[in-house]
Amino acid sequence: MDLEDTLLMMPGPVTVTPRVLRAMSKPMINHRSAEFAGIYTDCREILSSIFQTKNDIFVLSGSGTAGMEAAVGSSVGSGDKVVAIENGKFGERFKDIAAIYGEVVPVVFEWGQPVNLEVVKEKLEEGAKAITLVHNETSAGILNPAAEIGKLAKKHDALFIMDGVTSLGGDDVKVDEWGVDIAVVGSQKCLAAPPGLSVVSVSEKAFEVMKDVTKRPYYNDLLAYKKSGDKPKAETPYTPAIPLFYALQEALHIVKEEGMEARIKRHRVLSEAIRAAVAELNIEMFPQLNEYSHYSNTVSAMKAPTDVTGEDIKSDMKARGVIIAGGQERLKNKIFRIGCMGNVTGRDVLSTIQQLEIVLNKHGYIDRLGAGVEAANRVLDRA
Amino acid sequence: MDLEDTLLMMPGPVTVTPRVLRAMSKPMINHRSAEFAGIYTDCREILSSIFQTKNDIFVLSGSGTAGMEAAVGSSVGSGDKVVAIENGKFGERFKDIAAIYGEVVPVVFEWGQPVNLEVVKEKLEEGAKAITLVHNETSAGILNPAAEIGKLAKKHDALFIMDGVTSLGGDDVKVDEWGVDIAVVGSQKCLAAPPGLSVVSVSEKAFEVMKDVTKRPYYNDLLAYKKSGDKPKAETPYTPAIPLFYALQEALHIVKEEGMEARIKRHRVLSEAIRAAVAELNIEMFPQLNEYSHYSNTVSAMKAPTDVTGEDIKSDMKARGVIIAGGQERLKNKIFRIGCMGNVTGRDVLSTIQQLEIVLNKHGYIDRLGAGVEAANRVLDRA
Repeated sequence: MDLEDTLLMMPGPVTVTPRVLRAMSKPMINHRSAEFAGIYTDCREILSSIFQTKNDIFVLSGSGTAGMEAAVGSSVGSGDKVVAIENGKFGERFKDIAAIYGEVVPVVFEWGQPVNLEVVKEKLEEGAKAITLVHNETSAGILNPAAEIGKLAKKHDALFIMDGVTSLGGDDVKVDEWGVDIAVVGSQKCLAAPPGLSVVSVSEKAFEVMKDVTKRPYYNDLLAYKKSGDKPKAETPYTPAIPLFYALQEALHIVKEEGMEARIKRHRVLSEAIRAAVAELNIEMFPQLNEYSHYSNTVSAMKAPTDVTGEDIKSDMKARGVIIAGGQERLKNKIFRIGCMGNVTGRDVLSTIQQLEIVLNKHGYIDRLGAGVEAANRVLDRA
Repeated sequence: MDLEDTLLMMPGPVTVTPRVLRAMSKPMINHRSAEFAGIYTDCREILSSIFQTKNDIFVLSGSGTAGMEAAVGSSVGSGDKVVAIENGKFGERFKDIAAIYGEVVPVVFEWGQPVNLEVVKEKLEEGAKAITLVHNETSAGILNPAAEIGKLAKKHDALFIMDGVTSLGGDDVKVDEWGVDIAVVGSQKCLAAPPGLSVVSVSEKAFEVMKDVTKRPYYNDLLAYKKSGDKPKAETPYTPAIPLFYALQEALHIVKEEGMEARIKRHRVLSEAIRAAVAELNIEMFPQLNEYSHYSNTVSAMKAPTDVTGEDIKSDMKARGVIIAGGQERLKNKIFRIGCMGNVTGRDVLSTIQQLEIVLNKHGYIDRLGAGVEAANRVLDRA
């Protein structure tokens, strides 16, 4: 099957529209020039409204993980306590990064279990320089309580570092209102640009803290990004991935044209349609929720049905031209995940559910086609 | 002036041919897939022959600076002594990176001055875990004695970490013969791909050393690259910049089609032509050489003539459609640099010299046009 004929429904990298792909075919430019500064400045302005922030914004030539390391490594030094909340693979990654730069206070819940705010509170009361949270835990399909963690962080004077890698640009993220000191997004998720860039917003408070950190990472140093990024220069400290900046700029224009309100609604409706479909097909959602947690609106994680593994579903779907994701590491085979990020349409979701029904039917898990599609379509029609 | 009408003669990013630009317009793929592994493996095979090495090769989604940090940060820990040779901006950068991860023993020569091997030897005799060298110092246009430093490193059992960012793919670099434990190249220089990737080769000895380093950087961790990169997986630890991999693969095929021998000869002849032209125009080369040092064959650094600054020449050339570079930091205004990297042709060089003559004539520095072009063309004709 040709690449162009597949439907990408993974939790990133997502489909990049031809309009954005074409933007990458422009010739290279000097990255220390007014031309580059113009592109960078345009990107940062649109990103500010996506992040809902007045904080400084930087575009790093590295994936979301580079952004996560920049956030933690620039603001945490030897001996600094970091409360690291984990309820999935990316929470664990924050914890691992924090262990390199500071002293980790792990707050671990089983992957897919909700965050218990009481436990977080207790740890913060013991004193911490920073707290890390993955807003939308991609590995488990759960939306964690960012606003509530923001309040706790403020109360205990801890820096709030948030991975918004798969929420920003698709779901509602209020960086300033929630008090997020450093927020991170990846280019290849809800922004629908190619992978390779991350975007980081940094509060004044975070910059103050960074000045006292002596062993910051070199490539992912947010103070270096600030020094080069300040107007009127608007440069990056090291050579940026120029074609990816061309692509990001075009992808951001698409976001702006749709409008963030409409974009958030679309992600929510499409993910609700997926949830309605799988419920109708007797497939259980994977994450456990509590009063502060929600199903992700950008990636749906479902338990694999009895006798059919997550990898079976993933590979059968791939053979039928739809790329979805299985579970990662300890969740491998136990779950499967359908991403709904970027410029996904209702037709894409219905086509995915249709193929999922065929796969489940082939495995004898359902005995007729159409029920899931109908349930999904009811949600789409109502919206 | 339209971007497409300019001639890029900077020391990177270089012109990327339409064939390579078009490769980036392919749709995104899952980076944990056979498709991606195939691309990565193909790139690594061609890169092995460019590096002239049997060592492991990794492609990092970050610029040459990310590769430099990966090299030093993965192999040097707290208290480890690093002899850092500096005779330009990128040597200084290695020194700054080494200061984050270990204890620096600086060996500093004024930018553009040759490396004195006696001084290096003395420092190594005091004991060091590693030594860093910039092979082709882009900021000063000087080619440093890599083979000789390799011998000294071996004799004193120090890890040899070499920045080949602007030599690999354009000049002769014998990683195995010289005993380079870690070599780094950037995608946007002599390989003629877009910026955003770096390539690192790692010896078995370097891997052994890394295992004892506990606080390696997270994103730029070469052991993580090894773990994910080992066959048959051939993955990267974090989401790679997929379009840049498409471009790199195509750019490497162009290198393979030309053949490294022919490619090295072309870079040498073109740079010799530039040197012949500027000599004829009474412009002095900037670097000072000794018996072990040479003019760079990928970037020529010239002293700005009396009464005309490097920035004047750069901006006048830009107005005429040719993008060259000035001096960086302390060398600003004192020098100007003409890059000769990637798929540059004799016609490009002659056109650049022609425009340089016009600019110098406008400033009253030369009184007739053509002498530089003639000198350059004699070199080209002879080759």
